Amino acid sequence: MEQPALLVIISGPSGTGKSTVIREIMRRRTLFFSVSCTTRPMREGERDGVDYHFISRERFEQLIAEDALLEYAEYAGRFYGTPRRPAEEQMARGTDVLLDIEVQGARQVRDRMPDAVSVFLTPPSWEELERRLRNRGTDSEEMIRRRLETARGELDEARTYDYLVVNDEVTAAADRICAILDGERCRTSRCAAFFSEI
Amino acid sequence: MEQPALLVIISGPSGTGKSTVIREIMRRRTLFFSVSCTTRPMREGERDGVDYHFISRERFEQLIAEDALLEYAEYAGRFYGTPRRPAEEQMARGTDVLLDIEVQGARQVRDRMPDAVSVFLTPPSWEELERRLRNRGTDSEEMIRRRLETARGELDEARTYDYLVVNDEVTAAADRICAILDGERCRTSRCAAFFSEI
Repeated sequence: MEQPALLVIISGPSGTGKSTVIREIMRRRTLFFSVSCTTRPMREGERDGVDYHFISRERFEQLIAEDALLEYAEYAGRFYGTPRRPAEEQMARGTDVLLDIEVQGARQVRDRMPDAVSVFLTPPSWEELERRLRNRGTDSEEMIRRRLETARGELDEARTYDYLVVNDEVTAAADRICAILDGERCRTSRCAAFFSEI
Repeated sequence: MEQPALLVIISGPSGTGKSTVIREIMRRRTLFFSVSCTTRPMREGERDGVDYHFISRERFEQLIAEDALLEYAEYAGRFYGTPRRPAEEQMARGTDVLLDIEVQGARQVRDRMPDAVSVFLTPPSWEELERRLRNRGTDSEEMIRRRLETARGELDEARTYDYLVVNDEVTAAADRICAILDGERCRTSRCAAFFSEI
């Protein structure tokens, strides 16, 4: 049965372990991972076109004007956005697309593409999130406080997502997200082709 | 995280291989299988309380009057219904409950319990359903025609289910239904406890 490709949104507060879980999902399922574009400078170890497409503010504003972004948002004076074309091309070919985006962007994508599957990844508890942020050892106390404050706002937004996945353990969280994807493929609303065939 | 138990409805035309798929799911997941009650006579090889609760028409009418059935329907002059109490008791204990019921009954349950997860199991094609019904070798040509006609009506009703699962192969169909259950457990709407905890 021919089926429309899935557009999957994954969001989650900084310190949830999202990148690790996404890497595990990509190991198990064939998904196109959408690379965002940003106007923030490249950091050491980052690669253009892999971690982000690093572009100028002028170029970013041009993309907005051309409606070439599925979503975009500004954080701390820097723009972040999802290029529309690569995602749409992959989906047209039948490949599921994965977006790792923030809650603001997720809301825009869900408004535009109501068939998108949205997953909010969360740490098992507030204490655990704080512990993980501290254990990274990369952020100042002030930065940790700010991240926790942002996380609080994001968790409020989590209710608007289709699914909530607790990242208690990477393998278990990936299991749940893969189950969500496999289940979503069976949604009656995605099976129009079946009904027209039978 | 404490979560409400799932109420899972599985329907599918006669000849879809539903019993085999359900047996495979029960092997993999802990679910309470709801035994229906019926006014039809017991057939050879059937066991009271296992295949059905075989009860009198008077008793059945009493259950209806007491609102002791989650759903009921009449087929060919015989009543079939789902006892409410065992299902509710299991769910209160946190055990997911599986109902193998027809499309009429499924509609009643979904109306009463909108959180129920409904899965329609279908053969891969019309030709395949006809082939399976013929290969059973138990039914007359007239009976096969009638079953196909009923199946046509049931397939129309399939659009109203949450999920459509094609039974091309028992293991694959069970995989899909298990993914649906695991995914449904992550539905944000079922995670109220998480939000009140965090």
